[in-house]
Amino acid sequence: MPLVLYGDHRSGNCDKVVFTLNYLGLPYEWVEVDSLAGETRTERYLRINPMGQIPCIDVPGHGLLAQSNAIIRFLADGSPLLPADAWARSNMDAWMFWEANNHEFFIAGCIGHMTYMGQPKDTRDPMRVRRGEEALDIMERRLGGAPWIAGEALTVADISLIAYTRHAERGGFDLAPRPSLRAWIARAQAALRIT
Amino acid sequence: MPLVLYGDHRSGNCDKVVFTLNYLGLPYEWVEVDSLAGETRTERYLRINPMGQIPCIDVPGHGLLAQSNAIIRFLADGSPLLPADAWARSNMDAWMFWEANNHEFFIAGCIGHMTYMGQPKDTRDPMRVRRGEEALDIMERRLGGAPWIAGEALTVADISLIAYTRHAERGGFDLAPRPSLRAWIARAQAALRIT
Repeated sequence: MPLVLYGDHRSGNCDKVVFTLNYLGLPYEWVEVDSLAGETRTERYLRINPMGQIPCIDVPGHGLLAQSNAIIRFLADGSPLLPADAWARSNMDAWMFWEANNHEFFIAGCIGHMTYMGQPKDTRDPMRVRRGEEALDIMERRLGGAPWIAGEALTVADISLIAYTRHAERGGFDLAPRPSLRAWIARAQAALRIT
Repeated sequence: MPLVLYGDHRSGNCDKVVFTLNYLGLPYEWVEVDSLAGETRTERYLRINPMGQIPCIDVPGHGLLAQSNAIIRFLADGSPLLPADAWARSNMDAWMFWEANNHEFFIAGCIGHMTYMGQPKDTRDPMRVRRGEEALDIMERRLGGAPWIAGEALTVADISLIAYTRHAERGGFDLAPRPSLRAWIARAQAALRIT
């Protein structure tokens, strides 16, 4: 039985796992879970992931693992996507925790508001807009000084951050005044062979 | 020059680092940064941490590292606070990313609203209240089946989650109906020698 990935095809958090699996050439089975219809909160799914979220993977010989960033960090172990040096890995971790704490909730929240919910741009939560703009500014400054988020090499921190950043304009954020960010999106998409 | 910790003494995220340093017996210098007064957004501080947040550490022989969870994960490397087994470490990581994405923003947000901002309980952001209650319920279920967040041993995932959970009642959350959570708080505080 191969690795099983429980996911919702609309979720950027699930994209992170797909991008990593495909980049590393790892086979997997996709099991669709409709999070918008509440399938992540059913007793059946909570037995798979008690956190009630997608994505979650079931790994042969190991078991279940939740949280997109923990999943891609696990999958990348021993590959060039995870720095071998402990200090470099810690700096990559800082960007992955920053994504989880200061980026995803705001950027993905605005994208969801305008796409899945079909609401107009001017009804976005002002707090999420402000924090999302701040996050994109921090990325623009970072990527003005380094080709990749964690420094000189593509890592899972880029995969974590590309998932929603590449769709930021769907959430009403303007990437035009952020040339370093746009160049990084193109570079990451080319490296990961996604469009 | 010892390890330097830039922090705000009121911040639970900084508590995580202090608890870890003290538990491991590592010496450090504390540099106070007044985040409520905007000191984390000054040019001077942004040279230290471009993410504009506390905590941040300056490690002899290495340099600067941001994000509380990345910091404590780095500090714990090679100690019993970080599982040696890769799969166990990944499951610990899942709880740390969950803390960053599904716990801190909601619980700490409500605590900040009622303490630093001095606002009454009934003016808390309803979204943060709902998500905070959900997070505490997930912890209660988890800790009904395991003594520590990542399983059989105290890890930095416990330190990450104890920082704000132990003060959840200051944010208007009721721990009385959550006996497993309360027992874990007592157990973790005793292990970490904090009160």
